[in-house]
Amino acid sequence: MRMNDLITKKRDGKELTDEEIAFIIEGYTKGSLPDYQMAAMLMAIYFKGMNDRETTSLTRCMAYSGGELLDLSEIKGIKVDKHSTGGVGDKTSIALVPLMAACGLPVAKMSGRGLGFTGGTIDKLESFPSFTTDIDTASFIRNINNIGCSIMSQTEDLCPADKKLYALRDVTATVESMPLIASSIMSKKVAAGADAIVLEVMSGSGAFMKNDEDARELSEIMVNIGRLAGRKCVAVITEMNEPLGSAVGNSLEVIEAMETLKGRGSSELLEVLKTLGTQMLILGEKCETEEAGRSMIEEAISTGKAIDKLRELVAAQGGDPHAVDDYTLLPKAAIVEQIESPQEGYIAKIRCDEVGMCVHTLGGGRSVKDEPVDLSVGLMVNKKVGDFVKKGESLAEIHGNSEEAVMKAKKRFLDAYTFSDTPTEHLKLIHGIVK
Amino acid sequence: MRMNDLITKKRDGKELTDEEIAFIIEGYTKGSLPDYQMAAMLMAIYFKGMNDRETTSLTRCMAYSGGELLDLSEIKGIKVDKHSTGGVGDKTSIALVPLMAACGLPVAKMSGRGLGFTGGTIDKLESFPSFTTDIDTASFIRNINNIGCSIMSQTEDLCPADKKLYALRDVTATVESMPLIASSIMSKKVAAGADAIVLEVMSGSGAFMKNDEDARELSEIMVNIGRLAGRKCVAVITEMNEPLGSAVGNSLEVIEAMETLKGRGSSELLEVLKTLGTQMLILGEKCETEEAGRSMIEEAISTGKAIDKLRELVAAQGGDPHAVDDYTLLPKAAIVEQIESPQEGYIAKIRCDEVGMCVHTLGGGRSVKDEPVDLSVGLMVNKKVGDFVKKGESLAEIHGNSEEAVMKAKKRFLDAYTFSDTPTEHLKLIHGIVK
Repeated sequence: MRMNDLITKKRDGKELTDEEIAFIIEGYTKGSLPDYQMAAMLMAIYFKGMNDRETTSLTRCMAYSGGELLDLSEIKGIKVDKHSTGGVGDKTSIALVPLMAACGLPVAKMSGRGLGFTGGTIDKLESFPSFTTDIDTASFIRNINNIGCSIMSQTEDLCPADKKLYALRDVTATVESMPLIASSIMSKKVAAGADAIVLEVMSGSGAFMKNDEDARELSEIMVNIGRLAGRKCVAVITEMNEPLGSAVGNSLEVIEAMETLKGRGSSELLEVLKTLGTQMLILGEKCETEEAGRSMIEEAISTGKAIDKLRELVAAQGGDPHAVDDYTLLPKAAIVEQIESPQEGYIAKIRCDEVGMCVHTLGGGRSVKDEPVDLSVGLMVNKKVGDFVKKGESLAEIHGNSEEAVMKAKKRFLDAYTFSDTPTEHLKLIHGIVK
Repeated sequence: MRMNDLITKKRDGKELTDEEIAFIIEGYTKGSLPDYQMAAMLMAIYFKGMNDRETTSLTRCMAYSGGELLDLSEIKGIKVDKHSTGGVGDKTSIALVPLMAACGLPVAKMSGRGLGFTGGTIDKLESFPSFTTDIDTASFIRNINNIGCSIMSQTEDLCPADKKLYALRDVTATVESMPLIASSIMSKKVAAGADAIVLEVMSGSGAFMKNDEDARELSEIMVNIGRLAGRKCVAVITEMNEPLGSAVGNSLEVIEAMETLKGRGSSELLEVLKTLGTQMLILGEKCETEEAGRSMIEEAISTGKAIDKLRELVAAQGGDPHAVDDYTLLPKAAIVEQIESPQEGYIAKIRCDEVGMCVHTLGGGRSVKDEPVDLSVGLMVNKKVGDFVKKGESLAEIHGNSEEAVMKAKKRFLDAYTFSDTPTEHLKLIHGIVK
């Protein structure tokens, strides 16, 4: 088999066989296929796509590229994993892990740091002093057997092919390809060993998928891969034309997640947690209907079981559980100011990616790997699409550590808002469920 | 400027500016842009193309990638270069260089070895014992001033960008792209410093361009690049659905070229020489009309001036000029056999690439760089499309050095022929001229 012939085949729009895909991924992981041939192949895939069989084959090869999959057989019951494609103010994982464990569902959550507007789930959780996700598989499994959940940073040897491929896609303009996005996400989920997977696919200006059509296409591809790989899989498409809830930033999002688990946080976040959580409970066979799932979640919150579980999780992974109750123990920014509305009117539109970039401007995200992230900075957004605001009223509270960055971020934030004299509609949170 | 953004731009079908193209070619030549980003860019160009301005800009950047262009100002008069896109039995350059010099046109011919069915022009010329094209620029210019022509192998430092890019295209399935083919050819011609360029674009199964539509498109792009780069440029599209003339192979082609210069060779080759030569003479302002050009060529042959010029050229570049008259001094194969027709009929079709591959099978071409080429082997094709043949009559004479290779090549040759019971048309030699 010659790589040049395989590139030609894909370039000409033909299907690659399972053997050919295995040859490519094995060769690339081992280093016998050079980056330049892989780059040409990725661009050919960008233009010509892959069908479901090819994408599943690619996912499977990447999942097995580190050798064996993660073995979670020591954990009793159906293990459910959850993944979000990411968005502005997306703190669902932080709340869902203890919430599902409180409902009796074992949660084995593998997370990453990622590049973006804010840090990833792991960065956010490091707001808890001394909390670590840098644990080995034995500790991960032990935690889940002891308290019902654990969060572990993705290890170096899980899916090395995906790691190498993603780095190459990032510098060859081949990130935005449905089969490549889907296989990258799903290979990590398959390798992480869970029996069932719930995917949160965000749709809108603040997300990777800019519209519902793309979000639905990606969802369908991923659910299909999951099914072909023998995993139960559901995708929930959620709104990302404005931040989810109010908090955008690392420790601020952790606080909002905790407030919601305490029954007094964002109603929007609660609704998303109920929708995603119910799907997880159904896949994990903890309930049969959506109504039953919602009741279980409401009970876990009202009885305090959910927030108790978070305390246990923080303690089990080396963090200070007092921070769950005393937020002064979390990173705090030096400057807190209001961003006042320049005019009266209804919020017509928010450029959500620009809101995310404000937090990045404040130092809350990273542009390159291993860059430090300021966990204290961020925004508490007070006015969202459909809300009415008076001139001078607060659109958001900004948290920063440098006057200059705060000034820049404020300007950027205001530029992201569009006002209307006539009433506008609130956005719909859940856009669809793909099973 | 970030290469990733430029790949995205081309991937999305947008035009690259002259500055962006310069950034890419300079960076790639110097090694600051990695192969993998260039590979992704090449594949994006494959899919999205380049307009005339972009292609010309690319050509110019590649032409200057080695520093200055070749300076031919010491040669008096209009310097005309000639290039062929290559085909089976294409010996026009060998004949045209002395023929044009005999007509008073200074010919500065830069040639390559190339991969393919047979060797390149340089390999073929090495059939003359001791002949060398490995000369420096000073000798090249001195030859042209003394005898009116010279042939030099392309130096390492001429167009290093093209050299590096071609090697990358060859392993990333991005060879077959019109703007990349056109800029590769034209950059070398522009760098070689001639004032005018005549392009021989072959069209058919034995050529790189498989049909007239592609051949015309490539011709138009190249002529346009030439014009935009300030060079007079004409392309002649010629037949390549059967070999040109009769000889296919290195020394056999040299003999056929010499026979034609002596006025007794292939009438087809003569017609192509007249068409190409006339265009060269017109661009070089040696004549004004095609009729005048044809007369000059006929005279150069009938008076013996053309073959005399070849003797001078061979001698000037270290070869033995006696070989021009005594063909036994040229490489000769041990086995010479006839390939007999298995049936009676009219020749309906010849798979010309397969005929070329027969010579490759005999050892007359190279698959990888620096491989030795057997100059003695090849074919003398006796029957072409439109010809009538009796059963047992010779279709071709095969020259080889191993019984096994001869047997294989014979079989392959016969498989390339299709016969018809009813009369078939002879092919038209000249398919068009693009100015």
